[in-house]
Amino acid sequence: MYVHETEYRVRYADTDQMGYMYYGNYARLYEIARVEAFRSLGYSYKEMEESGVLMPVYENHSRFIAPALYDEMLTIRTTLKVKPAVRSVFNYEIFNEKNVLIHTGETTLVFLRKDNNRLVAAPAALLLKLEPYFS
Amino acid sequence: MYVHETEYRVRYADTDQMGYMYYGNYARLYEIARVEAFRSLGYSYKEMEESGVLMPVYENHSRFIAPALYDEMLTIRTTLKVKPAVRSVFNYEIFNEKNVLIHTGETTLVFLRKDNNRLVAAPAALLLKLEPYFS
Amino acid sequence: MYVHETEYRVRYADTDQMGYMYYGNYARLYEIARVEAFRSLGYSYKEMEESGVLMPVYENHSRFIAPALYDEMLTIRTTLKVKPAVRSVFNYEIFNEKNVLIHTGETTLVFLRKDNNRLVAAPAALLLKLEPYFS
Amino acid sequence: MYVHETEYRVRYADTDQMGYMYYGNYARLYEIARVEAFRSLGYSYKEMEESGVLMPVYENHSRFIAPALYDEMLTIRTTLKVKPAVRSVFNYEIFNEKNVLIHTGETTLVFLRKDNNRLVAAPAALLLKLEPYFS
Repeated sequence: MYVHETEYRVRYADTDQMGYMYYGNYARLYEIARVEAFRSLGYSYKEMEESGVLMPVYENHSRFIAPALYDEMLTIRTTLKVKPAVRSVFNYEIFNEKNVLIHTGETTLVFLRKDNNRLVAAPAALLLKLEPYFS
Repeated sequence: MYVHETEYRVRYADTDQMGYMYYGNYARLYEIARVEAFRSLGYSYKEMEESGVLMPVYENHSRFIAPALYDEMLTIRTTLKVKPAVRSVFNYEIFNEKNVLIHTGETTLVFLRKDNNRLVAAPAALLLKLEPYFS
Repeated sequence: MYVHETEYRVRYADTDQMGYMYYGNYARLYEIARVEAFRSLGYSYKEMEESGVLMPVYENHSRFIAPALYDEMLTIRTTLKVKPAVRSVFNYEIFNEKNVLIHTGETTLVFLRKDNNRLVAAPAALLLKLEPYFS
Repeated sequence: MYVHETEYRVRYADTDQMGYMYYGNYARLYEIARVEAFRSLGYSYKEMEESGVLMPVYENHSRFIAPALYDEMLTIRTTLKVKPAVRSVFNYEIFNEKNVLIHTGETTLVFLRKDNNRLVAAPAALLLKLEPYFS
C-alpha cells in the first residue's frame, strides 16, 4: 500500500454561489494528489507522457460529506491499495483544517499508448518505484 | 420516469492537452442537464434557491467510455427514474455526434434549507411538476 | 465590420461565493462568441486547426462593469472592426437579460502554423468569408 | 512598492488541446498571487470579506508572451506600485522554470461594502500593513 498526502488551498475560482467548492473542482484536487503522489516516489507523470503513455480516467466515484470552504487548507490523502496493472485505482480522503473528513473519492485510470491508442500495462519504471510498498 | 435531452458543444476551455474534454468538466454538463431538465418541466432551480432551498451534490459516479472531443455537439440524456424525496438521483447518458454513448453518470443531490442548513423533503412545487411522469 | 451575437446562460459552475460569475470565466464566453461568429460565417475554427493553423491569444483586455448573475441569459455581441491580417482583434459587449451592458472585452489573437510554430497571415478561406463585410 | 512572489504548478486541468495553459486560467493565478501577497503581509483576504468588504475585479489586462506548459513550476511576481485607495492595482509578471518572462498582467480591483453594495476606501488594517512599503 502506498499513501501520500498533499495540501490544497481552496480558491475563489473553486467556490460557487452556495459558498462551497463547486463539486466539479474536486477532479482537479484528485489530479494534483495523484501527480504529487507519483512525484514523491521519484516518478514523473509528465515524463511518462513524453515516453508515449497516457493515463486517461476510466471511472470516478465521489462522496461529498461536508463542504470545502474558501481559503481552507485541505489535506488530500491518496492511497494506492493495489499495485497498478492494466489499471490503477487511487483512493482519496480529503480533510479540512479541523481534520474533519469532508470528502472521499476513487478514480480508476488506465494506461494508454499514445501512438496506437491501445491499453497497455503500467510502465515498468513506475512499478519499480512502487515495489517497496507492495511486498 | 422523466427523461430530458440537452445539447452541449465541447469548447477549447473544456479540453486538455490529451485532446479530450477534461474529466472534471463533465460535472458542468451534468449541472446544465439537470437544470434544463427542471426548466423544461416549468420548474426553475434559481427560484427554488430564492425560496430558500439549495440542492448540494452528495454523491457522484462517472464512467468515461470514450473521449469527448473539441467542437463536438454532445447530447446529454437525463433520467429521473425515481420521484425525488429526501434525495434526487439523476442519471446521464452522453452521446457524441455519431450517436455513440461515450459517458454515463449518476448524481445524488439532497435538498437543504438555507436558513438552518437542514435536509428537507423535495419542494411540493417540484413534485407537482413531476407528478405526471410517475403515476 | 462584422457583428455577431451569441447567447450564454450563466451556470453554477461559473459563479463564485460573491454570487457573481467568476472573472476568469469570461474567457470562456469570449471563446464561444469568437467560434460561433466564425461558424455563422460558414467558417469552422476546428477545421482551421485541422488544416494546421492555430489561433493562440496574444492579448486580452476586460472591463467588468456590473456582475453577471446565476442563470441569467447573457447576449455577447462580437465585433470584428478590422479584417484579420497577421492578427485578429475581437471586441465583445455583454448584455444581461435587462439589456444592460455589463461587460466589455477585447482579445487579440495571432495565426500560428502548428508544424513550425511560426506566425502566419490569416487563412485565405477565412478572409474570403469576411470579404463582404469589409468592402 | 510592495513585491511578492508565489509559485504555481501548471496542471492538466489548466491545459487545453493546444498543449498550453488555457488563456482563461491565468485569472486563477492572479487571484492566488494577490491573496498570497496579502497573506505574506499578515493580511487575510478571507477575514476582510468576513468583516463585510469584498474586492471585485473592475478591469483586467493580460499579455500572453509565450505559453505556460504542463507541469511547469511558474513564478508569479506581484507588484503593488501604488498604495491602494478606492482601487487597488496589481501587476503580475509570470516566469517559467527557465526564468523566461512568459506573461504579464494587470488587474484593478475595487473595495465594495457587502451590506449596501457601495464602493469604499481600502480598509485601514490593510493600509497599515502596506505602510512600510510606501514611505
